[in-house]
Amino acid sequence: MTIEKKIHKAGPYADYFCQGVRVDNALYLAGQVGMTESGDIPSELSGQVELAYKNIIAVLGEFGASMDNIVDETFFVTDMEDCMANVPAVFAAREAAYGKKPEVCQTLVATPALVDPRLKVEIKVIARL
Amino acid sequence: MTIEKKIHKAGPYADYFCQGVRVDNALYLAGQVGMTESGDIPSELSGQVELAYKNIIAVLGEFGASMDNIVDETFFVTDMEDCMANVPAVFAAREAAYGKKPEVCQTLVATPALVDPRLKVEIKVIARL
Amino acid sequence: MTIEKKIHKAGPYADYFCQGVRVDNALYLAGQVGMTESGDIPSELSGQVELAYKNIIAVLGEFGASMDNIVDETFFVTDMEDCMANVPAVFAAREAAYGKKPEVCQTLVATPALVDPRLKVEIKVIARL
Repeated sequence: MTIEKKIHKAGPYADYFCQGVRVDNALYLAGQVGMTESGDIPSELSGQVELAYKNIIAVLGEFGASMDNIVDETFFVTDMEDCMANVPAVFAAREAAYGKKPEVCQTLVATPALVDPRLKVEIKVIARL
Repeated sequence: MTIEKKIHKAGPYADYFCQGVRVDNALYLAGQVGMTESGDIPSELSGQVELAYKNIIAVLGEFGASMDNIVDETFFVTDMEDCMANVPAVFAAREAAYGKKPEVCQTLVATPALVDPRLKVEIKVIARL
Repeated sequence: MTIEKKIHKAGPYADYFCQGVRVDNALYLAGQVGMTESGDIPSELSGQVELAYKNIIAVLGEFGASMDNIVDETFFVTDMEDCMANVPAVFAAREAAYGKKPEVCQTLVATPALVDPRLKVEIKVIARL
């Protein structure tokens, strides 16, 4: 068994967990949010989705992987009504990140809160290399 | 590595994600809810659990798998009090789907909302072939 | 493929699911909470985190595994504000369980309720052997 771990240097909790852990051909990622390294957060859900995927792509890239490697994703959204009302924009941001209609499993549930009150979505993905 | 993806044709979001993705002997399923293809949703939690498992069985079947292949499941319920008050009916529906007392891991948490306000439960499972 | 399942004898729902299922070198654990076998639950979040990890360690131990084998964890907390206000105590309890700064992926989301109203956290982990 081969294990490889990647720890982002940025962020207040960088010391406490990895953004990605690869075990053989399975790659687990920490839930990603739409926050820049300097702490900026877009106000719109679709903008946060776009940024969360940008962060996901960065972590995947550290393992030599890309969006093509994602097999499963879970969305935790703080406002399901807002999410469903903005499905076209949200799915467009997602499709842009994948570069095509994503062929991955998806689970979409609401959460009362994420780690920052401005956050509207956290995306947890599993990839296979 | 062998990858196989299955996309249900039914449902408004069929174009946007897969109901199942198999990578080697790991099979990920999208979270399943108690909704028929025509959009009907039972009013009782236990009825939704029964139907969600029926949908899970359909996806598993597309990969030549069955409930015996499930190793891990997560329940997201919109009303924990209602769930705990109806544990006998809920677990009976689940046991009927498995055809025996399930020997799988289970995680049960509440969610404020699912993709349709009538939904009371979403079940996400992982299977191994 | 080798499958091994472990079912805790204690608890009201012991008959209904496993605390751990191993498939080859992947080990799935049921979500663990900060409850003793006799039903006691610490009032503080950090105490519940400590106890949840104690329960995780017990399940891992049944498979000859330890905290070193964990690769991914998801925290479901019932009060995100309380969690973020107590990050030092929570992460200290977690670091004590790992015996070092954990090199695992982490996803932290809120949930409106867990299976007992006294519970403040449920921790679901995935391990690799």
